[in-house]
Amino acid sequence: MSHNLLEGKRGIIFGALDENSIAWKVALKAKAEGASFILTNAPIALRMGGVQQLAQQCDTEVIPADATSVDDLDALFAQSEEKLGGKIDFLLHSIGMSPNIRKGRAYGDMNYDWFLKTLDISALSFHKMMQVAEKRDAMNEGGSIVALSYIAAQRSFTDYTDMAQAKAMLESIARSYGYRFGKSKKVRVNTVSQSPTKTTAGTGISGFNAFFDYADKMSPLGNASAEACADYVLTLFSDYTRMVTMQNLFHDGGFSSSGITEEIVEMLEKQAQAGQ
Amino acid sequence: MSHNLLEGKRGIIFGALDENSIAWKVALKAKAEGASFILTNAPIALRMGGVQQLAQQCDTEVIPADATSVDDLDALFAQSEEKLGGKIDFLLHSIGMSPNIRKGRAYGDMNYDWFLKTLDISALSFHKMMQVAEKRDAMNEGGSIVALSYIAAQRSFTDYTDMAQAKAMLESIARSYGYRFGKSKKVRVNTVSQSPTKTTAGTGISGFNAFFDYADKMSPLGNASAEACADYVLTLFSDYTRMVTMQNLFHDGGFSSSGITEEIVEMLEKQAQAGQ
Amino acid sequence: MSHNLLEGKRGIIFGALDENSIAWKVALKAKAEGASFILTNAPIALRMGGVQQLAQQCDTEVIPADATSVDDLDALFAQSEEKLGGKIDFLLHSIGMSPNIRKGRAYGDMNYDWFLKTLDISALSFHKMMQVAEKRDAMNEGGSIVALSYIAAQRSFTDYTDMAQAKAMLESIARSYGYRFGKSKKVRVNTVSQSPTKTTAGTGISGFNAFFDYADKMSPLGNASAEACADYVLTLFSDYTRMVTMQNLFHDGGFSSSGITEEIVEMLEKQAQAGQ
Amino acid sequence: MSHNLLEGKRGIIFGALDENSIAWKVALKAKAEGASFILTNAPIALRMGGVQQLAQQCDTEVIPADATSVDDLDALFAQSEEKLGGKIDFLLHSIGMSPNIRKGRAYGDMNYDWFLKTLDISALSFHKMMQVAEKRDAMNEGGSIVALSYIAAQRSFTDYTDMAQAKAMLESIARSYGYRFGKSKKVRVNTVSQSPTKTTAGTGISGFNAFFDYADKMSPLGNASAEACADYVLTLFSDYTRMVTMQNLFHDGGFSSSGITEEIVEMLEKQAQAGQ
Repeated sequence: MSHNLLEGKRGIIFGALDENSIAWKVALKAKAEGASFILTNAPIALRMGGVQQLAQQCDTEVIPADATSVDDLDALFAQSEEKLGGKIDFLLHSIGMSPNIRKGRAYGDMNYDWFLKTLDISALSFHKMMQVAEKRDAMNEGGSIVALSYIAAQRSFTDYTDMAQAKAMLESIARSYGYRFGKSKKVRVNTVSQSPTKTTAGTGISGFNAFFDYADKMSPLGNASAEACADYVLTLFSDYTRMVTMQNLFHDGGFSSSGITEEIVEMLEKQAQAGQ
Repeated sequence: MSHNLLEGKRGIIFGALDENSIAWKVALKAKAEGASFILTNAPIALRMGGVQQLAQQCDTEVIPADATSVDDLDALFAQSEEKLGGKIDFLLHSIGMSPNIRKGRAYGDMNYDWFLKTLDISALSFHKMMQVAEKRDAMNEGGSIVALSYIAAQRSFTDYTDMAQAKAMLESIARSYGYRFGKSKKVRVNTVSQSPTKTTAGTGISGFNAFFDYADKMSPLGNASAEACADYVLTLFSDYTRMVTMQNLFHDGGFSSSGITEEIVEMLEKQAQAGQ
Repeated sequence: MSHNLLEGKRGIIFGALDENSIAWKVALKAKAEGASFILTNAPIALRMGGVQQLAQQCDTEVIPADATSVDDLDALFAQSEEKLGGKIDFLLHSIGMSPNIRKGRAYGDMNYDWFLKTLDISALSFHKMMQVAEKRDAMNEGGSIVALSYIAAQRSFTDYTDMAQAKAMLESIARSYGYRFGKSKKVRVNTVSQSPTKTTAGTGISGFNAFFDYADKMSPLGNASAEACADYVLTLFSDYTRMVTMQNLFHDGGFSSSGITEEIVEMLEKQAQAGQ
Repeated sequence: MSHNLLEGKRGIIFGALDENSIAWKVALKAKAEGASFILTNAPIALRMGGVQQLAQQCDTEVIPADATSVDDLDALFAQSEEKLGGKIDFLLHSIGMSPNIRKGRAYGDMNYDWFLKTLDISALSFHKMMQVAEKRDAMNEGGSIVALSYIAAQRSFTDYTDMAQAKAMLESIARSYGYRFGKSKKVRVNTVSQSPTKTTAGTGISGFNAFFDYADKMSPLGNASAEACADYVLTLFSDYTRMVTMQNLFHDGGFSSSGITEEIVEMLEKQAQAGQ
């Protein structure tokens, strides 16, 4: 599928790591839809080298930037505008990392320096990116900014620990900065709350398989894939959605509005019988 | 703007009345995007004749149907499938009418026969449409169904009276039927909660101008137009959004996430000074 | 537990049927807290006679009224004010019935006359009750009105069918009438969204046991009992909550904010192992 | 009003500053309802001395603690348990401070060290308080924890800047820790989202008067006072609400569910006439 949806648009895509990444799929599809863009990720994430290969496929380049560093972001926007030949139309924020999750800390045993690090990397970076873009006047009027979120922002998920707060904060930043950027430049800012996805980041969370299966059983359409998510993000970058802003948009096969499903009922009934 | 987004898709569009209608704009744009569809409205609404002209522009025809009548809907789907040459990919429900509003009844003086009529026309018709479609197996796998709603489903608006309940019920039907249709046919069902719009129906509500101005001042992007709404609906009919279902999607320039805006602050400050 | 919370307050309690009813528990506890009130239910529901016994325990009487009949409601308020010796401070609406559920109709095979009946009995009756009370000027300033709801208003639950729409409409009425009654008489109107409860009405829904077990496993505090619900309702009738209005308040042991729990994870893991 | 609601309960109240503070009102009323508790605040906030006077009135003492310091919190709980003679039944978190707001920074010119400080003081402190309490096993089974929030967590308010993210994060912590504490000790955790309140902290925000007036006009019951808020918090500390957890509860006179009000319509109409 490709309809030239993003013809002539310029963007920056944060967070492509490997071919399982949602950002990776967005890049491939945005290219197919006619966009040109810069790929970026933290220097440490780029060591593995896969992103260079993606850049080749997309006929573009990779500019390393630590998204928590205002200086790096400033340089990134400066170089991107130059290389792309104009102001930016779209930004994708697909960044999340929690040292507490990596180290297997329980929610009742958080390391607070790491907690602030989780917030800085996974949420505050979204504000920094927009503040830098606005100060440089780097966005085109009517541009579109999207960050990827998860329903842990609204409901408790065991093992997701401090990332829940990061996602709640991320969605809040979308509303606050969406107001500001909407008034000044008609730029819209939204978050997409995606099904659990078998990315390298996602599968790092303990108990991810149970999360994934449960969400799949609880979603009338099943879990949304990374590929479907990329399709959806394209509509938000396109000119068909210019009045949608400050929203958290569930892309989850219906999970968020699903109270109970036949699959769950059957599983419970089976277990009840087994227990007799 | 046109990208062949709906190439080869077949639909039925309920509720085009005149060129101010959102359904009218959807029809014109869906045509431009490559769709073929049937137009329908209540016999009484068709008397004015404008819709025939739209049908000509769209190279299609109008089939009258009272959306509260299961028999009419059954005939409509039968004829539509025949005329379009296959199963249906998309449905638009843009139907709302309240006898209590028409007659200027206050919310503390509702006529309850009319109240049930409001619900039947404005909300239950959405269920009927889907039940008929499902019983006839008229929808294609992966199809998309959209109904137009308003934020009065979530918050109180003076003068909107029983239509608030109709919209709350409409959005609830989208969730309930979305579950069912998702499981059986991968059909998604969503509502779009649109800014107040200067349609013939909208402007019939007393105090509409104040609603409209207030929403405009409270929306960082201003009120979304009928035309922008039609663009958005197209993305929901397209294959880019196949995993979005059971959602109420605000298309409102940011109104729903806006707590207070500079315009409102200024207005209040002016008034405070005038009052001194 | 009893702290004279409702000393001197007068009320009307709709919907006590037998000792499993939430309304029954509210009556007993309201009595213990110092309130006086009238009990009411539909004539047909009163045939079984249990409510008379409750009335004796509470030193009050039962006035039959069909809550869908404005005339019955009018007579009920007239007699209640007379018997209680003054205006009313609190109302409890605990009424719900769906002919479609009773007859086992699937959501894709709704009988629409019955659907409207479900809405009339389970939701519109709440509006009627308030409109009658307001027209008669029967409520005391600062009074409190509560209706019992269920999270099916927000999320899809298989088998709950048209009651989902009734509850969505009920909560919408609370917001709309809450605005009106708040302005005119400082009366607050709220809904309490209660855990699945083993009442006579609740257990009539097919698959209720699976609902109940699932909700229990998904609620960090377990399902809330009818008794706990009654305690909560008392706080809403008391003067401690005079500024809470137009809200839907979850009384559900945390279910509504719970995304996944350890119990569900364990169940899924067990099943995954069994499947190998 | 006083009904011995908290007889025999022990608590810790964070954040009383002067007699305008909500925490101050909670203390006075909790005392009247039979509770014993410790007052605490940051050493710097205690310099002004008013809190000592409150302590006298409440027949208790003040233990200084920086709520961002785990050590301080640890000492606070140790001393509180000792002085109160047992485990704790309730905690109030009424803490918020933003250096960015104090220094008048616009949302497009945030200082990021200060931003993290805002989060640490206003939100992370809530997690720290609970983690310390849980590690010390300081809470009684069935206890209740409340933090004060604001609707800027859901909607954008000009001038509230990074406090919006702090409140979103605070509410998210209530859900996440509420799950954990509910499972382990039946402790419930909620936030109360209060009307704008003329406290010393509140009035420090630029444009506060416009916020306040607007909210008052948009709330059918008017803005809720600090005193009414304290009443409401008492019900959440009492045993009447033992199954309410992980909720954000609006105590706002109806603001959150109010789309437009007559006052706003009138103001707009006046202005429209003046503009002609």
